[in-house]
Amino acid sequence: MTPTLPAYDPGNVFARILRGELPSQTVFEDEETLAIMDIMPRADGHVLVIPKAACRNLLDAPPDALKAVALTTQRLSRAVKAAFAADGVTIQQFNEAAGGQVVFHMHVHVMPRHAGLALRPHTGAMEKPEVLATNAEKIRAALRSG
Amino acid sequence: MTPTLPAYDPGNVFARILRGELPSQTVFEDEETLAIMDIMPRADGHVLVIPKAACRNLLDAPPDALKAVALTTQRLSRAVKAAFAADGVTIQQFNEAAGGQVVFHMHVHVMPRHAGLALRPHTGAMEKPEVLATNAEKIRAALRSG
Repeated sequence: MTPTLPAYDPGNVFARILRGELPSQTVFEDEETLAIMDIMPRADGHVLVIPKAACRNLLDAPPDALKAVALTTQRLSRAVKAAFAADGVTIQQFNEAAGGQVVFHMHVHVMPRHAGLALRPHTGAMEKPEVLATNAEKIRAALRSG
Repeated sequence: MTPTLPAYDPGNVFARILRGELPSQTVFEDEETLAIMDIMPRADGHVLVIPKAACRNLLDAPPDALKAVALTTQRLSRAVKAAFAADGVTIQQFNEAAGGQVVFHMHVHVMPRHAGLALRPHTGAMEKPEVLATNAEKIRAALRSG
């Protein structure tokens, strides 16, 4: 039962990042997935896990992509928790505009959380590139030591 | 890099549901996963996908459980979208109290969404059993026709 969805648009931002047409702060990559810094982070260390397969979201994702994304999401959850000495991790994944989706290539939000500290609102403000670079390096270091 | 977490507590509510010690409105079950109605739904048709493996959350979940949960989450996302003629689906998964977790057995929230309709706040109020039963039957019917 695959629902009818709008066609996958290969011009979306994450497809362009996957093709190397746009820059990103990549923290992890394997054959099937990529993990990059969210440029509008709702918490320091907010990363996105993206399948390389062309899919719009969870509703049309191939099973192998789903499994690979699940494993990479776990790996990144552990890494951001370690990198930011976080107390917890919040995962969100949005499907279609009504579900909260803005970029129509599947992605999973991985956000380290600290006790008593709410997620920042999604204002659309971009983080400074040097802050993203510093946070990305913390996550890479945690992945290396993992 | 598995983080140090508090020990898994087999007395948690979902472990008791998995052992049949507490009732639930089950909508799907396979060898590795169970899907049940959330009794405090933030949207009509809000279901939880639970691995049968004893794990606290994403941080300590075995890889096979993660993969199975990912596939069941996709299956239920499609089913609730069809069952409630939803425009989208929101997925949330919380790890440790600071990450939003309340019951310490891994679970994924699957919430059908309609354009312009916000999620209901998590007030702790329980849905009427007959409403849960009706919504569960809609999801089972969508799974059967899928």
